Amino acid sequence: MSSESPSDQSPTQDELDLLHYELRINRPVRMKIPEFLRDERLRHVIFSGQFNVDMLEELGGIADKIRVLSKMREGQDFLIKLLHHKRAMLYFTQPSTRTFLSFMSACQILGITCNEVRDPTTSSETKGETRFDSIRMFSSYFDLIIMRSKLARLAESCAYLMNDLSETGNRSVPIINAGSGADEHPTQALLDIYTLQRTFQFTDPKDSPITTRFDELRSEYPELTRGLSNKVYGFCGDIGRGRTVRSLASLLTNYENVTLIFIAPNDPTLALKDDLRQRLADQGVRMHEVESFEDQIDGIPVIEQLDALYMTRIQKEHNDPNDEKHFAELDLSRYKLSQSLVSRMKTFAPILHPFPRDQHFGEIPPEIDDDPRAMYFRQARNGMWIRAALLATIFGVHHQITSFFHEEYGGVNDRVRMTNAK
Amino acid sequence: MSSESPSDQSPTQDELDLLHYELRINRPVRMKIPEFLRDERLRHVIFSGQFNVDMLEELGGIADKIRVLSKMREGQDFLIKLLHHKRAMLYFTQPSTRTFLSFMSACQILGITCNEVRDPTTSSETKGETRFDSIRMFSSYFDLIIMRSKLARLAESCAYLMNDLSETGNRSVPIINAGSGADEHPTQALLDIYTLQRTFQFTDPKDSPITTRFDELRSEYPELTRGLSNKVYGFCGDIGRGRTVRSLASLLTNYENVTLIFIAPNDPTLALKDDLRQRLADQGVRMHEVESFEDQIDGIPVIEQLDALYMTRIQKEHNDPNDEKHFAELDLSRYKLSQSLVSRMKTFAPILHPFPRDQHFGEIPPEIDDDPRAMYFRQARNGMWIRAALLATIFGVHHQITSFFHEEYGGVNDRVRMTNAK
Amino acid sequence: MSSESPSDQSPTQDELDLLHYELRINRPVRMKIPEFLRDERLRHVIFSGQFNVDMLEELGGIADKIRVLSKMREGQDFLIKLLHHKRAMLYFTQPSTRTFLSFMSACQILGITCNEVRDPTTSSETKGETRFDSIRMFSSYFDLIIMRSKLARLAESCAYLMNDLSETGNRSVPIINAGSGADEHPTQALLDIYTLQRTFQFTDPKDSPITTRFDELRSEYPELTRGLSNKVYGFCGDIGRGRTVRSLASLLTNYENVTLIFIAPNDPTLALKDDLRQRLADQGVRMHEVESFEDQIDGIPVIEQLDALYMTRIQKEHNDPNDEKHFAELDLSRYKLSQSLVSRMKTFAPILHPFPRDQHFGEIPPEIDDDPRAMYFRQARNGMWIRAALLATIFGVHHQITSFFHEEYGGVNDRVRMTNAK
Repeated sequence: MSSESPSDQSPTQDELDLLHYELRINRPVRMKIPEFLRDERLRHVIFSGQFNVDMLEELGGIADKIRVLSKMREGQDFLIKLLHHKRAMLYFTQPSTRTFLSFMSACQILGITCNEVRDPTTSSETKGETRFDSIRMFSSYFDLIIMRSKLARLAESCAYLMNDLSETGNRSVPIINAGSGADEHPTQALLDIYTLQRTFQFTDPKDSPITTRFDELRSEYPELTRGLSNKVYGFCGDIGRGRTVRSLASLLTNYENVTLIFIAPNDPTLALKDDLRQRLADQGVRMHEVESFEDQIDGIPVIEQLDALYMTRIQKEHNDPNDEKHFAELDLSRYKLSQSLVSRMKTFAPILHPFPRDQHFGEIPPEIDDDPRAMYFRQARNGMWIRAALLATIFGVHHQITSFFHEEYGGVNDRVRMTNAK
Repeated sequence: MSSESPSDQSPTQDELDLLHYELRINRPVRMKIPEFLRDERLRHVIFSGQFNVDMLEELGGIADKIRVLSKMREGQDFLIKLLHHKRAMLYFTQPSTRTFLSFMSACQILGITCNEVRDPTTSSETKGETRFDSIRMFSSYFDLIIMRSKLARLAESCAYLMNDLSETGNRSVPIINAGSGADEHPTQALLDIYTLQRTFQFTDPKDSPITTRFDELRSEYPELTRGLSNKVYGFCGDIGRGRTVRSLASLLTNYENVTLIFIAPNDPTLALKDDLRQRLADQGVRMHEVESFEDQIDGIPVIEQLDALYMTRIQKEHNDPNDEKHFAELDLSRYKLSQSLVSRMKTFAPILHPFPRDQHFGEIPPEIDDDPRAMYFRQARNGMWIRAALLATIFGVHHQITSFFHEEYGGVNDRVRMTNAK
Repeated sequence: MSSESPSDQSPTQDELDLLHYELRINRPVRMKIPEFLRDERLRHVIFSGQFNVDMLEELGGIADKIRVLSKMREGQDFLIKLLHHKRAMLYFTQPSTRTFLSFMSACQILGITCNEVRDPTTSSETKGETRFDSIRMFSSYFDLIIMRSKLARLAESCAYLMNDLSETGNRSVPIINAGSGADEHPTQALLDIYTLQRTFQFTDPKDSPITTRFDELRSEYPELTRGLSNKVYGFCGDIGRGRTVRSLASLLTNYENVTLIFIAPNDPTLALKDDLRQRLADQGVRMHEVESFEDQIDGIPVIEQLDALYMTRIQKEHNDPNDEKHFAELDLSRYKLSQSLVSRMKTFAPILHPFPRDQHFGEIPPEIDDDPRAMYFRQARNGMWIRAALLATIFGVHHQITSFFHEEYGGVNDRVRMTNAK
């Protein structure tokens, strides 16, 4: 019977489906970007490389407004009706509680109803259904598919499938990549950028008309500027396997005059990968690789130079037997933060972490949580706001948010109001 | 202790509960139908046999209106408030992603909040709770129970339980059967009928005042009429185990002058079952059983005679060891569609499939998906609309939908507007 | 590598986190109660001991109003908008379908959007995340955490964590204990109390202006009073392990002139535990322990003396091998109710059960379900109303409910209206 064991013979339809899009997948990113737009508006979110500085700043601005509106009953009522007629499918065949809940919350803020399929083997797949048939089923019922998968490029293929359906006059919905294999996790990169945007606004609810926090900082750091340009960014820990490091580092190259410092062991698994090093070099970014916070660049220890520090967890669940052996010989304790290290950092330099952190390794011990530089809990909440901004943009209601915001806060200094929100 | 191993001794309460309703279950269907109504309105949905042509046409009309209203913001806002005070329990102890998501979506369109229990062993059952106690618990918290179970007749028993509760002055809620064992899946039959209703309206958004698509088709097929009557319906594949085939074939007998052709191997598992053959014969339906699309009836190959084709998957997950042996000797490739077969079908004849289709068997290869006769993806979306129409009817808000629709579209030709919706 | 097998060495961060709150946990309850308030309003719900008679009566009054409003479309629309901007996390690492669904329903009645994590091992925990980091993540995304855990005191610790975050200017949300280990399940106690409150109002929709049900009962029971005071409460079955018995018995001591009778085998596992006996004795409550409904107190069999009977299931899933042996020698059939026993109870005395009941043991056979004294199904629904009242109180919208109720029903006798709701 022909329905038996397909793997050892001719390719399955699932395999053929992916092959069908291979040529398009192998194109350079810049050729793909226009296909993820529709009528010049964001349609699919697949790569962090889709976002240029203008888009990042616009999204950050919308996120700020959603955040402020969410503090007041009037704003909440406005937001929750914006998209209450939309229904999203969260198709998470690779588990992730944190990303999942963040997207759920972002949807709910705008009134979007959420549905989920989280089991890697849905009952339909066991009946022989292809992945693409499943995706088309979701697109029949829902207005948006947010997907996370172990398969690299699955989200990208689904975006092409949707575009092809649209061109043949069929129903088609936006695709958001919530993490695909080891390669891309674009919304994590967006929330990291958004956290840096907020930090480097240097505004404070207590700013007086006479001096601001920025003025005070400038007396200590005369070179300091607002915004993400002209900064030194440190990345510490599992650089080699950290997909969030890859995405954030790539996005930061869009800003002027940035320096990237990677603090990782000289180990083939954990150190910067060749392809990323090459990509950054091609873009002419200033870049250093060191093995410790104490290593010096231009005579100054790295820890004292950083304008922002991005910590990561050693992803030991991805260790292979060789790694275990290598790692035993390394001094991994260098990739843990301590209160004494933090005390030497610039007074404004935010500490980020994509979370979860690992209590057994302890890359950020809890005694640092109360330091004002510790941004990692706010970072998580920022993820909710920036994802809500993304959803509003995809569904084209971002201008309504801006209008409502200006009606409500027309006469007031936006920045001061915004920083009142927590 | 008396709480031990109940199975080898006296009957459990669960068994007694089902026995309690045995007499009522064994009555002829026509005696039961009035019990699934309340105040002459649909209350419980248990069998496809509950629905006569008038009800099918009314439900289709409501589904059409919901579909059109859902395309506009005003209509969406109206729909989503209609039942936002109602809460549904989706109690799916037999898994089915597709039916589950379709019901979820239908509920959400009308604003109904959904809750789910999908684990076959809830924690309460492991503590010795009876199924009926679980159902009464659900009826305490929710306003509707949509249930899918491996147990034939469980949904029917629950409907009787609810009716009994109602008669003793207790709280009682409607029951919808979303598939019970091998016997019934009434809402699948409704969506199949609805897909045929829409196809056989023969209207098209591009119809001009001078000629319509129906006029053009009539020049090629002079006998063609609108509606489900006077048609030849083909069913292909796993006829014996296809519960959707059983339900749809039964409902079609309500329409005048229909011919049913079953295309299946001459095999005791896969061919038409005796009870269904007998039931159709009793109703005087014209009926043929053939082994191939190429078999001729009145000198014309079956494939060229069909006004609609219902394809099915070979349900190999239900094979027993004997089946495996039989099937190896059959030429099952005859029960796959191909582009050359489709090219010989009537130009308007819709191809349906209850989905999922099986990529390994390939009963409908993907190259057919772009053929205008391929209705199976729209069929899925139709399921959402007809289920929404069903829910609106059960909760008695269907007249509000009709009124709102006519206020909005009063002066316009309904049919043309409706076909604009996709 | 330091991330390995933490258990056999230094304490994990999870262990340190719990130790951090040990001193606060070990304080007497009365010292803790103020910490579960904020601005004199209920903030966290951790113990049943938090609730005094005034709070219990106020909560019951709000629950009554929510129940009545829920019967009319106007009231439903009012309720569903009250908290539609709030999002709750139901973090149930110890499964419980019944409590879970009751909380879901309570949230939904007030428009609160629900999210859930039910898997004991979330993906983040397997990556080394601490429980407290998980809870802080939830508090980033949601406005309320309802938690059920096998760990005694986890909910209490989380309440302290939230208070500490609040004091350091961080985001903090209310915690509700939905069952923690064997020690506390405060909302179950609230629904038991609420069921008694409603029963002992002795009002009936059919009460005429001339005589009421209460008047009739007084002719039979001249000592009868309205309310929970001056009553004899019986608890039957698994008294030793019944956490609901512990909580309810404790709360009842707040009322005047109550007598508690525990009907359980003389067995170290099943009989009243020493600590509870001591606590009740310290409060000067009248208390009896008997082994059968037939045992006499002051010459009258217990079954004939009860004003309310609280039945429980033998929690055999918690048996240890010793228990099995003991239990085989006991006559457990004495702890089952029967129609003949019920017929000897006072005509108004409600029968409660925390549910699920055990069909194999049969502590309440189904033939009793139709007796007007059987309150256990209504009790479940009461749980939904009292939990909604609790949520309204925590979010400070209870006064809006009262105002809206009085606007709608200003001129009418509240009690009569309320009893019309089922």
